[in-house]
Amino acid sequence: MSKIAEGSNRFPRLLPISGVRLGAATAGIKYAARKDLMLAVFDRPVVVAGVFTRSATPSAAVKWDQSIISHGKGRALVVNSGNANAWTGKAGAEAVQQTVRTTAKIVGCPMSQVFVSSTGVIGELLDHQKIMRKLPSLHKRASPKRWSEAARAIMTTDTFPKGASRSIEVNGQIIRINGIAKGSGMIAPNMGTMLAYIFTDADIPRNLFQRMLVAANKKSFNSITVDGDTSTSDTVLAFATGAVPLGAGIHSIQSPDLVEFRKALDSLLVDLAQQIVRDGEGASKFITISVKGAENTGAARQIAFSIANSPLVKTAMAGSDPNWGRILMAVGKAGQSIDPDKLEICIGEFPITRNGDLLPGYDERPVARYMRQPNIEISVKMGIGNGNATVWTCDLTHDYVTINGDYRS
Amino acid sequence: MSKIAEGSNRFPRLLPISGVRLGAATAGIKYAARKDLMLAVFDRPVVVAGVFTRSATPSAAVKWDQSIISHGKGRALVVNSGNANAWTGKAGAEAVQQTVRTTAKIVGCPMSQVFVSSTGVIGELLDHQKIMRKLPSLHKRASPKRWSEAARAIMTTDTFPKGASRSIEVNGQIIRINGIAKGSGMIAPNMGTMLAYIFTDADIPRNLFQRMLVAANKKSFNSITVDGDTSTSDTVLAFATGAVPLGAGIHSIQSPDLVEFRKALDSLLVDLAQQIVRDGEGASKFITISVKGAENTGAARQIAFSIANSPLVKTAMAGSDPNWGRILMAVGKAGQSIDPDKLEICIGEFPITRNGDLLPGYDERPVARYMRQPNIEISVKMGIGNGNATVWTCDLTHDYVTINGDYRS
Repeated sequence: MSKIAEGSNRFPRLLPISGVRLGAATAGIKYAARKDLMLAVFDRPVVVAGVFTRSATPSAAVKWDQSIISHGKGRALVVNSGNANAWTGKAGAEAVQQTVRTTAKIVGCPMSQVFVSSTGVIGELLDHQKIMRKLPSLHKRASPKRWSEAARAIMTTDTFPKGASRSIEVNGQIIRINGIAKGSGMIAPNMGTMLAYIFTDADIPRNLFQRMLVAANKKSFNSITVDGDTSTSDTVLAFATGAVPLGAGIHSIQSPDLVEFRKALDSLLVDLAQQIVRDGEGASKFITISVKGAENTGAARQIAFSIANSPLVKTAMAGSDPNWGRILMAVGKAGQSIDPDKLEICIGEFPITRNGDLLPGYDERPVARYMRQPNIEISVKMGIGNGNATVWTCDLTHDYVTINGDYRS
Repeated sequence: MSKIAEGSNRFPRLLPISGVRLGAATAGIKYAARKDLMLAVFDRPVVVAGVFTRSATPSAAVKWDQSIISHGKGRALVVNSGNANAWTGKAGAEAVQQTVRTTAKIVGCPMSQVFVSSTGVIGELLDHQKIMRKLPSLHKRASPKRWSEAARAIMTTDTFPKGASRSIEVNGQIIRINGIAKGSGMIAPNMGTMLAYIFTDADIPRNLFQRMLVAANKKSFNSITVDGDTSTSDTVLAFATGAVPLGAGIHSIQSPDLVEFRKALDSLLVDLAQQIVRDGEGASKFITISVKGAENTGAARQIAFSIANSPLVKTAMAGSDPNWGRILMAVGKAGQSIDPDKLEICIGEFPITRNGDLLPGYDERPVARYMRQPNIEISVKMGIGNGNATVWTCDLTHDYVTINGDYRS
């Protein structure tokens, strides 16, 4: 259990979403005596949106999902942990085909409505027979209540299951959004992947759902980093059953009727993303980095990630060292416009540099005390434009080296 | 002492270069009881070439050197360790001015012929009086033999002084190139910087010297990474006294008379750069990463650095774990063109993947044995173009976290 995960490990209450049933089973893919297979089935075809890893070597499952998502409809989602089915060539693609075919037959839908994900070891063949054997009973026992079980079945090196829920009222009707996710380090020891699945009963046109998901993803899963590494299997899929209307006038993502829904979706994804950081491998601190006044949003993100991914900043955080020189260094190396005479660096509430100089009379002691607690805020004001960005990360500790440096055995 | 530095720590024999004198002194800037100030003086103005940090927040010394290098002439170089004079505002610029003015007066040259570097703590004012007090006696005692002393005086957290020497024969005359460098982690705990100084007696037009230095720098200091961080003070300066002619027909860096000199310069810079990696903070392995057949050279470098900077690859190396899935991940996230059906990954002499699949009958055991020794080679063949690159790095160990995560005291 990550030192900063305490309290995060109580799985929240996720209420049923009409038309969505879930189940989990022990397929024995890699782990002994734990559930490693999850199925979500939808009573009717639902609207599907998705974002995937930008890796140039995506897994067989990602390739399949990418090939069918333009159809925009889903009836089932099958996820296994323990094996990523990545770098498995033709045999890996065949394993996906077989799993999808079997699922489609059981559910009674076209293959193009069956989404799959795999997370775990790279480069080992996935024994899809183990999955296929479990699917009929999984389908039979699927229930609207098994959120926690589903969240646990998709874990690899995660130390706690990750879930979040939001309810909003639109035109007198309640709309619900549930999400589950997994991830702990962008890639755990020879394991892989950040996965997140979002379910809602809202009625949303697919193109708007996709655009909202891309926007929410950028502010959440694309704004976190544990070690700057990117898995071959990263996947966010969102399913909307359409049971509850959002409003008649929804033609663009700017529609007033969408404001509340977008806020809820953004906040749900940020919640899940932060849970992943809190479960970061070896993490002892949760770090929020905000950059304001950069040349533009892209520049602000570059600078924020330059700080968040710097091993020297991350080890300083681990050591509770208010080493602002390393933050400055990370700002400087980001390759973005800087006016040193305007740059301000704060740790927590403590301003450190202003107008190109260390603050007169700067006293490091209260900052060092602040840094001993587990939630650290770093803020940088560039003072040259309107570009803002916030990213979240964790520190780099001995435990990270231990977890990732020990020979797999 | 870094575990892989043993054997590297014998400072090589650097022979005198006519017209170049060096000295070192104990100025007491930060360290007790060790030399921390170095002076190189040239009997006559020498040709100067230089490359500097790309950081947007360069140190006061770097700013000064950048402002005078277009004049292309040098009579003196002053380097202090213990204080980087970075993020020190107007007072820092004034410290440089005073140091340069005093040196110019002592040497008897224009201020525009005095180069300076500072390496050490960021954000603390440099007490330049301590430097100025030592300059007269340093100048008086400067001698052609003090290479090792000079290399030691510029060290910060380095565990051994770094030097290299090359001699070539051109048209029956011997040309000599000496170099000294410092660096151990791109930035050590609140310290800074990679510095390298090259001295030769060759007679080279400034524009060609500059172009050769830029080219050699790219293949050496710009091809190493310890932690992916970039200092505010990185500096390479090269001085040519012009005592020995290189040939009459030197008009371009392609001139046949320059071939041997360029080879020697390249090899000297690679030697110094590799010494810095071997002294990398906490390093237990020296890792050579070569990427061949990428779309172009830029793509090959991106892929090589993506592998070299991946914390998951670096921790796997520390653990002697032949975790090729992480190498694949790093190739995939580099954002470059990939044809998975052509990608080959080798560790040492052992091929692992070929044509998009794990090699049939791949046996991990001999690879794991290979990885226990301190020099590791990773090679990736992309099979899609002519872009090649080689970079050097070290592993990410518990010692790195200890060195950088302990509170400065």
